[in-house]
Amino acid sequence: MSQVNHRFTLAARPVGMTKPTDFAYGEAPVREPAAGEILVKVRYISLDPAMRGWMNDYKSYIAPIGIGELFRAGAIGEVVASNDPAFAPGDHALGMLGVQEYATVAAKDATKILPIAPLPLFLSGLGMPGLTAYFGLLDVGRPQPGETVVVSGAAGAVGAQVGQIAKIKGCRAVGIAGGADKCAYLRELGFDAAIDYKAEDVAAALREHCPDGIHVFFDNVGGAILDAALARLALRARVVICGAISQYNATDRVTGPANYLSLLVNRASMTGMIVFDYAARYPQAIAEMAGWMSEGKLRSKEHIVRGLENFPSAFNMLFTGENHGKLILEV
Amino acid sequence: MSQVNHRFTLAARPVGMTKPTDFAYGEAPVREPAAGEILVKVRYISLDPAMRGWMNDYKSYIAPIGIGELFRAGAIGEVVASNDPAFAPGDHALGMLGVQEYATVAAKDATKILPIAPLPLFLSGLGMPGLTAYFGLLDVGRPQPGETVVVSGAAGAVGAQVGQIAKIKGCRAVGIAGGADKCAYLRELGFDAAIDYKAEDVAAALREHCPDGIHVFFDNVGGAILDAALARLALRARVVICGAISQYNATDRVTGPANYLSLLVNRASMTGMIVFDYAARYPQAIAEMAGWMSEGKLRSKEHIVRGLENFPSAFNMLFTGENHGKLILEV
Repeated sequence: MSQVNHRFTLAARPVGMTKPTDFAYGEAPVREPAAGEILVKVRYISLDPAMRGWMNDYKSYIAPIGIGELFRAGAIGEVVASNDPAFAPGDHALGMLGVQEYATVAAKDATKILPIAPLPLFLSGLGMPGLTAYFGLLDVGRPQPGETVVVSGAAGAVGAQVGQIAKIKGCRAVGIAGGADKCAYLRELGFDAAIDYKAEDVAAALREHCPDGIHVFFDNVGGAILDAALARLALRARVVICGAISQYNATDRVTGPANYLSLLVNRASMTGMIVFDYAARYPQAIAEMAGWMSEGKLRSKEHIVRGLENFPSAFNMLFTGENHGKLILEV
Repeated sequence: MSQVNHRFTLAARPVGMTKPTDFAYGEAPVREPAAGEILVKVRYISLDPAMRGWMNDYKSYIAPIGIGELFRAGAIGEVVASNDPAFAPGDHALGMLGVQEYATVAAKDATKILPIAPLPLFLSGLGMPGLTAYFGLLDVGRPQPGETVVVSGAAGAVGAQVGQIAKIKGCRAVGIAGGADKCAYLRELGFDAAIDYKAEDVAAALREHCPDGIHVFFDNVGGAILDAALARLALRARVVICGAISQYNATDRVTGPANYLSLLVNRASMTGMIVFDYAARYPQAIAEMAGWMSEGKLRSKEHIVRGLENFPSAFNMLFTGENHGKLILEV
């Protein structure tokens, strides 16, 4: 096969917001699958805030992307050649396929997907964001019926699922998002209240909408919003640290939560979570969430940008807040 | 009874470090015990960092001390008159007796102490500091044999017990304290390593002494030391927030831990604890710790300042770090 594979590599480590010159668009030959490998034609690529962290050269739960290396990304596509009995051409494969047209990966690192739902959904409500919401809220947050669950970045792919699952579990759901449109979307999804952090005093709004305090705070944002939520914790509250999008482009130091002593006053806990730890339980969670979707209790919204070459500008939308729904790049 | 009771009241809410004028030394008549009350001649008064928080006018786990009100403090003394069947003159009573010579309190708010050990010990290793160490480490920190436990404020009343109990439980114990004397004391108590934060680079020392990372960090200090410890957490580490003595005199905002995202990377948790929540289990914990003391495995050191009138200067020693051992005021 002498086909050309278009792909993005990391050109430079960004300082603050990414620039077009931090990414390099180039060509490489498509590599035939060796024994145990498959060749996948990439169809949809997931764009996630965590990818910004991989561009930095520091220790995290996953190694940074090297300069000149393929830009790492979760994606879904169709198998076009297989050298492993687990996959046949025409199968759908999900995995860390990268920002490229053709991925040659080990079959053991890919998951076979039965396309019972539109493919983008497996990068969204039934994919990592949905699974992150599911395990972060239910396993770490442990909400009880009647409790108040607050989520930041609530109109994002993870946040929207957190609020809806909280409602399914009999909780009061309050979302924090930026802009009237996003807040209207949250109310449409069934959130009990939506706080527009661009237009409202978040601390005052939390006092209004959480009269009994916050029992579970699911944080995707960090910074001032995390502090406002900490100041409003209920006794024995659980804070789930899922991300800190307000901090990912920080050129100075990250701003720590000045109100962390609220954990002491309220005997509360703050716990980090990473969805990969729950891999063994993905199938069960996907089945349960697909059930909720078929009952109309759980909805998922995707924002699809077309064209591999638009990756750098699409990626930046995550940090400017321009996307509405899970951001996905269609190849 | 027309005796005079000397006592301290709160004169002003301090800004930063306390000043002599924040405290008022005065007289009041000794009040006869009403039905259900006891009159206690106060012998030893516990001086604790948490008392600094009670001088501020903000919501905490306990109401602030009002201006002009008796200075709240835990203390132990002898019952001199009783109007309740639970106590007889000559009994020893422990409770929130306040910074004064004579306390008239409800019998139900006092604990009868059998003086099987010197009285100051019931304000120290067998009192609130010892109980805080016991429940904070064992219930919140949940150390496993072979794990590394790091404690800040390690030469303090709580910290010294944390390290010794960690050793009893088969852990590696590393203490952080200020000054060569305090560090020598930690090594004498059996800590595996002592870090002098006044003379050493704490981050570098933690790398050296915690090659496998920190499994349990018991924090009494906050600020830069909490950040250094967060940067060195092991996977699934537990951070116990017991206090933040570096922040109690903060006139600006508290400094939040900039490295809190280490909780995310390491799937770690940070949990606040307050010893009062464990009151039902005090007797069992005291019995177990007294056993360790009689076996020579657990030692407790008291720093006793004599004279009620020395309360303001003695109290400040907590924040200048001048005390060696649990600070107690002898009336």
